[in-house]
Amino acid sequence: MTMSNKRSAKGGGDQTVPAEPRKRGSESEDIKGRLIVVEGIDGSGKSTQLHLLDKWLRHLGLMVFNTEWNSSEVVKEITSKGKKKALLTPTTFSLLHATDFADRYERNVYPLLRAGYFVLADRYIYTAYARDTVRGCNPRWVRKIYSFATVPDITFYYHVPVEVAVRRILTGRPKLKYYEAGMDLNLSNDEYESYRIFQGRIIDEYKGMASNEGFHVMDGTLDIEMQQRLMRRQVLSLLPPGVAAIASKELGAN
Amino acid sequence: MTMSNKRSAKGGGDQTVPAEPRKRGSESEDIKGRLIVVEGIDGSGKSTQLHLLDKWLRHLGLMVFNTEWNSSEVVKEITSKGKKKALLTPTTFSLLHATDFADRYERNVYPLLRAGYFVLADRYIYTAYARDTVRGCNPRWVRKIYSFATVPDITFYYHVPVEVAVRRILTGRPKLKYYEAGMDLNLSNDEYESYRIFQGRIIDEYKGMASNEGFHVMDGTLDIEMQQRLMRRQVLSLLPPGVAAIASKELGAN
Repeated sequence: MTMSNKRSAKGGGDQTVPAEPRKRGSESEDIKGRLIVVEGIDGSGKSTQLHLLDKWLRHLGLMVFNTEWNSSEVVKEITSKGKKKALLTPTTFSLLHATDFADRYERNVYPLLRAGYFVLADRYIYTAYARDTVRGCNPRWVRKIYSFATVPDITFYYHVPVEVAVRRILTGRPKLKYYEAGMDLNLSNDEYESYRIFQGRIIDEYKGMASNEGFHVMDGTLDIEMQQRLMRRQVLSLLPPGVAAIASKELGAN
Repeated sequence: MTMSNKRSAKGGGDQTVPAEPRKRGSESEDIKGRLIVVEGIDGSGKSTQLHLLDKWLRHLGLMVFNTEWNSSEVVKEITSKGKKKALLTPTTFSLLHATDFADRYERNVYPLLRAGYFVLADRYIYTAYARDTVRGCNPRWVRKIYSFATVPDITFYYHVPVEVAVRRILTGRPKLKYYEAGMDLNLSNDEYESYRIFQGRIIDEYKGMASNEGFHVMDGTLDIEMQQRLMRRQVLSLLPPGVAAIASKELGAN
């Protein structure tokens, strides 16, 4: 948190929001690190894969920082308060999450990318693109809001059929939160049915983005080890040359 | 607050954020009411003028609703918490205020405009344009964020020299808040000096917007009654014909 104070004390110039999206992380001059993103609905297995990647990168001696969607302390409280009361309209909901994201981005993600870290993001701007669009926000408007955020070096999209993901989630976690289940969209009075429909629409949005946004689409129904090997192979190209040589040998040996 | 629940229960379709700004209120098909905005720095006298206009419109038998910048209950708490700790970057600061605005807009302003109210806004999107730009945000980005908000039927900009406004404010209110004084911009270690510089920059932004945004520029140094007469004359054209006839006679008689 001291870092954040240092940043904000520098004044506005340093945090100027660019008119257009920044270049892909590795192509941008002031970013030395790498940004790796996983996207997919809950139950797609993306967090498990990112966790295993994290372990591998640390094992290789790299500096790693993890960040999650919606985890900022500053606005977490109000988000959950607003959510509880079901008071948020789609626009407000969208902007509140953007605020939360911006806080994390400017405080952690961007400074650490500049410092040369591997930043692993469990959900990124594409989660907002998908959810906010399903809620009825204008897709171009949503994209413009997030235009301050750098494009990831690589985005893995974990695709699973909605029924597989829903089964994974609903097993052992019977109570769904209001917005999580998409209850604000009046899809169904039954929260499980609403959740299914909502998640199905999110998947449609992800599919629509996949080629435009250059997602690496991963089959989330494969076994965990196989998925992780495929993920690590994709990440090889982002490693410093010396590290990549060692890592490549390890991968080949497995 | 019951209205808000009704709105959000309708689902996303109704609150779709348009790609481009809506038309000026009176030109939009679904808006029967009128949106009147005052802008200007603190101490410009804008709130006094709006208050007097409010009394006049009610006297004329019209339905009036007042709204202020930064007054939403839902996010007020977190804004002031963030402000106290001086933890906000310009982007987060901007998005947090946009969230607050969106909440008020969708809950009150827009429904009441549709219901035929005269909505009087003490500060509107132009306050964000000015402040966020001074803080270093990209002007086009800020405008895009607020593109969901309807353009006012009329915007009065109350211009006063910065020294006049600052004298009015600093008399009797010795303690300035951190962000209010623009202390995050590192303009000066003295909060009064910082406030003066900050307000001067805001004025520059307002001036730059005046012709593009079609402001009615008012001389905030004139006496209060004179200013109010000028304001009411401008508002005449927004009144229903029968009411305008009566109001016009009253104004002439004064």
